[in-house]
Amino acid sequence: MSALLSEGLQLAGILAFAISGALVGVRRRLDILGVVVVGSFTGIGGGVIRDVLLGVHPPVSFTHWPNLTVAVLGSFIVFFVHPRLARIRYFEVVFDAFGLGLFSAHGAAAAYASGQTPLTSMLVGTITAIGGGVIRDVLVNRVPGVLTRELYAISALLGANTAVGLMACGMDELWAAVIGGTAAVVLRLVSFMRGWHLPRPRRP
Amino acid sequence: MSALLSEGLQLAGILAFAISGALVGVRRRLDILGVVVVGSFTGIGGGVIRDVLLGVHPPVSFTHWPNLTVAVLGSFIVFFVHPRLARIRYFEVVFDAFGLGLFSAHGAAAAYASGQTPLTSMLVGTITAIGGGVIRDVLVNRVPGVLTRELYAISALLGANTAVGLMACGMDELWAAVIGGTAAVVLRLVSFMRGWHLPRPRRP
Amino acid sequence: MSALLSEGLQLAGILAFAISGALVGVRRRLDILGVVVVGSFTGIGGGVIRDVLLGVHPPVSFTHWPNLTVAVLGSFIVFFVHPRLARIRYFEVVFDAFGLGLFSAHGAAAAYASGQTPLTSMLVGTITAIGGGVIRDVLVNRVPGVLTRELYAISALLGANTAVGLMACGMDELWAAVIGGTAAVVLRLVSFMRGWHLPRPRRP
Repeated sequence: MSALLSEGLQLAGILAFAISGALVGVRRRLDILGVVVVGSFTGIGGGVIRDVLLGVHPPVSFTHWPNLTVAVLGSFIVFFVHPRLARIRYFEVVFDAFGLGLFSAHGAAAAYASGQTPLTSMLVGTITAIGGGVIRDVLVNRVPGVLTRELYAISALLGANTAVGLMACGMDELWAAVIGGTAAVVLRLVSFMRGWHLPRPRRP
Repeated sequence: MSALLSEGLQLAGILAFAISGALVGVRRRLDILGVVVVGSFTGIGGGVIRDVLLGVHPPVSFTHWPNLTVAVLGSFIVFFVHPRLARIRYFEVVFDAFGLGLFSAHGAAAAYASGQTPLTSMLVGTITAIGGGVIRDVLVNRVPGVLTRELYAISALLGANTAVGLMACGMDELWAAVIGGTAAVVLRLVSFMRGWHLPRPRRP
Repeated sequence: MSALLSEGLQLAGILAFAISGALVGVRRRLDILGVVVVGSFTGIGGGVIRDVLLGVHPPVSFTHWPNLTVAVLGSFIVFFVHPRLARIRYFEVVFDAFGLGLFSAHGAAAAYASGQTPLTSMLVGTITAIGGGVIRDVLVNRVPGVLTRELYAISALLGANTAVGLMACGMDELWAAVIGGTAAVVLRLVSFMRGWHLPRPRRP
């Protein structure tokens, strides 16, 4: 993958998650640094978990300044410019969906390109994608969206599997990441708008 | 230890924790993928924490497919076949106790056999054993059982210390893990059934 | 830095955080082992996160017995000797502030001395400092103080940046850690006593 485009996808995912985290902070009426902390952790958290699992020490976001800069700037902007309270939840879900799609496909594609097996690549992409959101939700003391939101984990798995599958068929990393990411974002947003849910346990 | 038996103990621990996690998911009425996610994280979470602490990259459960397969299958089965609501809490505690015992003794014995010191082995076994349950409880937004349940941490410490102590006396890894694990499970279940608790702080 | 003094600062930070964690456990009326577990995790948690991020396997606190000993002993003492309920919250915040200051400056100085870049050192110090408190608060199911308390994250950043900045200007590690840590503790305690907060989002 062109290094520049790969970097762009990565930063776009960080920005999307940071915005979703900062919006949650605004909704909880944290002060400005609280908003920036929860936004930054949400933005770079998934990547840090990925690096810890793969043994990249220190994590890329600790040494490569653009990652943290994008996360902090995005959070600051949200603090000053954000929609009315009633709309925040909507925007939070949309930005979260973009982060989910970008990270799942890009994370899986990057892991596969670096020589990991398909299983490991798929798991790494999925965990990178859901990690930031889990950190955000645990910090503000609510059950993570991955357990409760419409087709959330399915969307991350779809993005990661599509990217790895396409690369296994010979497609290059960039296109695999773009197509997988698009599939994940579309599935997540459609299921959100339609309120699709998988079956729940039968009434016990 | 016979590699096959060691693998069997490991998978039994993963299955027990996955079932306990999936039962919590059913009780919270998560959808099917939510149940599988919380079950799988509970099942493999303790081992992933252990691998991250010891520097095994990527964690074994990300490269060795039986671990995740057992966790996912166990969670699926629980989704379809589970006791009435009033009984779920009981089964959750019992399976959690088996996971706790298996992981504490087996984790400590494996660490000691791989050349770690007794202190490190004991800590690694204990953290492997309580890690999955902490992840499960944090995800569903409740105070982890290790802080509140009857003799929970004591049981994990007993299992880990017994296994390491027996190996230091020359017993082989398999028997040390089996005896330590049995001790932990028995102590945990008896204290659960009798409602044993350690002293609480005096009324302040 | 004199190795002995560095070790002393480290242990003082562990003790301060362990006391703050154990006080929270007492306030929640956990039993004695619950108090010790939450106290110990709070005391050594920040350092374990630091070691995992930097690739120190196993974490120092798992191999170097004084760390865990100090954390466990401090928690035990708090269980038996603690102030009246109405005062616990006050002491918890004060000990937490000392842990925050000691860890932020000492962690950043140690990382910088070991050859990390200023950005990485600053981040490592800050995360070491807030990590223990985040673990404590997530375990007892409340929103971490770093998101809500008065100038909390600012104090950690001040301590870490001061220490790194002074070392970059040629000061030795010990003095940089002491001055940075003092600045962090003073800022945190003054803002606590005065109720200083950064701005919150405008009413949406």
